[in-house]
Amino acid sequence: GTVKKIAVLPGDGIGPEIMEEALKVLRKVEDLFGHSFQFTFGMAGGGAVDRVGNPLPEETLSLCKQSDAVLLAAVGGPKWDNNPPELRPEQALLGLRKSLNLYANLRPAVLFEGLENASTLKPEVVKGVDLLVVRELTGGIYFGEKKRERLEDGQQATDTLVYHEREVERIVRRAFEIARGRRKKLTSVDKANILESSRLWRSVVDRVARDYPDVQVEHVLVDNCAMQLIRRPADFDVIVTENMFGDILSDETAMLTGSIGLLPSASLGEGMTGLYEPVHGSAPDIAGQGVANPAAMILSAAMMLRHSFGYEEAATAVEQAVRKVLADGHRTADLAGPGTLAVGTEEFGDLVVEAM
Amino acid sequence: GTVKKIAVLPGDGIGPEIMEEALKVLRKVEDLFGHSFQFTFGMAGGGAVDRVGNPLPEETLSLCKQSDAVLLAAVGGPKWDNNPPELRPEQALLGLRKSLNLYANLRPAVLFEGLENASTLKPEVVKGVDLLVVRELTGGIYFGEKKRERLEDGQQATDTLVYHEREVERIVRRAFEIARGRRKKLTSVDKANILESSRLWRSVVDRVARDYPDVQVEHVLVDNCAMQLIRRPADFDVIVTENMFGDILSDETAMLTGSIGLLPSASLGEGMTGLYEPVHGSAPDIAGQGVANPAAMILSAAMMLRHSFGYEEAATAVEQAVRKVLADGHRTADLAGPGTLAVGTEEFGDLVVEAM
Ligand SMILES: CC(C)[C@H](C(=O)O)[C@@H](O)C(=O)O
Ligand SMILES: CC(C)[C@H](C(=O)O)[C@@H](O)C(=O)O
Repeated sequence: GTVKKIAVLPGDGIGPEIMEEALKVLRKVEDLFGHSFQFTFGMAGGGAVDRVGNPLPEETLSLCKQSDAVLLAAVGGPKWDNNPPELRPEQALLGLRKSLNLYANLRPAVLFEGLENASTLKPEVVKGVDLLVVRELTGGIYFGEKKRERLEDGQQATDTLVYHEREVERIVRRAFEIARGRRKKLTSVDKANILESSRLWRSVVDRVARDYPDVQVEHVLVDNCAMQLIRRPADFDVIVTENMFGDILSDETAMLTGSIGLLPSASLGEGMTGLYEPVHGSAPDIAGQGVANPAAMILSAAMMLRHSFGYEEAATAVEQAVRKVLADGHRTADLAGPGTLAVGTEEFGDLVVEAM
Repeated sequence: GTVKKIAVLPGDGIGPEIMEEALKVLRKVEDLFGHSFQFTFGMAGGGAVDRVGNPLPEETLSLCKQSDAVLLAAVGGPKWDNNPPELRPEQALLGLRKSLNLYANLRPAVLFEGLENASTLKPEVVKGVDLLVVRELTGGIYFGEKKRERLEDGQQATDTLVYHEREVERIVRRAFEIARGRRKKLTSVDKANILESSRLWRSVVDRVARDYPDVQVEHVLVDNCAMQLIRRPADFDVIVTENMFGDILSDETAMLTGSIGLLPSASLGEGMTGLYEPVHGSAPDIAGQGVANPAAMILSAAMMLRHSFGYEEAATAVEQAVRKVLADGHRTADLAGPGTLAVGTEEFGDLVVEAM
């Protein structure tokens, strides 16, 4: 087969450590399945601010554009928290999303075997949780016009939430396609009783729904959804929503199963290209100690195998290996507890490779 | 003492039934504490749309303006869900908030004795939950300019999030005052890494904080807050945030203790006037059956006694009576379970009156 070019952005904090384990797993995939990867490293985030004064250097951006997929570990840290907006690590994320047109953010949340008790929710409530948030990622209030004015009686700040029908339609269609391949239930979340953009959103969902009569659709207001996720999380299948609501709800969702260290994400554009990163952050407090959980990074690599390369068999093998290691009771510090076997970052990666 | 004028808006669904119990309790307050109330009824919500084609008739609005406080039960229902925006029941709420300048929405969430197990969260996680969301209620994206355009290549919708320093300062100051009377911890929630309005918000919080050195302040991003509320709800004391974030987070918060049927809210303006309503909705599915839980409505009346009339003793008496009835095991259908004593709406109200 062809050599797949992967842009590797380890980023800040625990980023480099967990990335190493994901690459170890991908090398095993090369051995086992005859695939070939070419890894090229790039700078992004706080480290890039420190070294070249730009969270997303031109070089990194063009590397990503020329690659078949981007693997990103994590960016950010308190060191850069008070930087002006353009010198903040998360600009790397926002810049990549916009430049690569990665409009569809996929965030699965599933309950892993052996982790029924990791959640702050009752085991009987999280039992069977297997949902996917599909978040619009390149529009809305994130990218609308911003303004700060000094009026006579004080300052005023403005942000603008804009959606074009086209932007709504492509993410909604993607969500319907995905729902069709799952349990065929789609929850569209908006605030149509207040926002004009939500009313447009809802009308597009209703129109596109006609092309997917096999998928059951419901509209839920964002405030109600924030409640229902806690009340009956297992009832949800696919949730589709706009950028800011998706930011909030996908983080809420990530916390439901209590295993945020295990959750991957994919950000996809029109073609096969995509960016893959764990849901968790750069955890600067434990960086360099070899105790970080590399599972979400490894599972992000598995999503890349599936969504950008179409290597379904390899993706499933990686996912099953991670599940097996967890089901066998191996735990990094974040998930450790009575009756579990404590392991470090590297050992967890080795166990996954072995299990494959 | 003076006669306090109360505008009574029973609204839709279970509204009239639960309002009746609150009025029963207030009459008991008159007897026991020598206060005097004058109740004047007004139309609002879906019923008002049906009868006079306006969810907030001019008459109702002027009644509210001339009253010392407004008691509202609940508005809305599926019947009006597809109405155009200006004929929807919730316009009554939005109109009252704006016209009476009720910029501060207070939503307490506490764990009631005897209800440790009502939540979908583990009892040890909700133990000790006692938090208050202070939500800005008359600004932000709710009231900014809205626009729908037909461009050559399709429709585009725009909403605008605007905050003036003054609007931020008054709600933030109020939250600091409230925190000072509680556990002295204030969590300000924003999305300062993305929104200009959040950066203004954060700078105002930091400036006002200097006047409250005894209150401990933290800034938390809205997505992170949505997570932390599930992870460690008992750590929060007062949360202050803008309108839309407050809408989402206060509903999430309401679900934490599993007893949304017990949660009151207050919407306050500059003086003593205020609007008091339960957090739950109009529950049209159980309307007229005499099974609705009147506790949140009764507790909303207690908040009115405290915040609009300064009747602290009476407010506490009502609250303690509700707590006692619950602690004794009496439950309306929404909270019924093994080992509890099932009661209807009216009986619950009677029990509260007795307990006083
Ligand atoms: C870091 C931040 C800009 C980003 C976002 O808000 O999109 C993050 O919260 C996420 O969800 O990926
Ligand atoms: C009914 C709706 C307009 C309202 C809001 O969004 O403010 C409600 O959700 C609330 O929180 O009071």
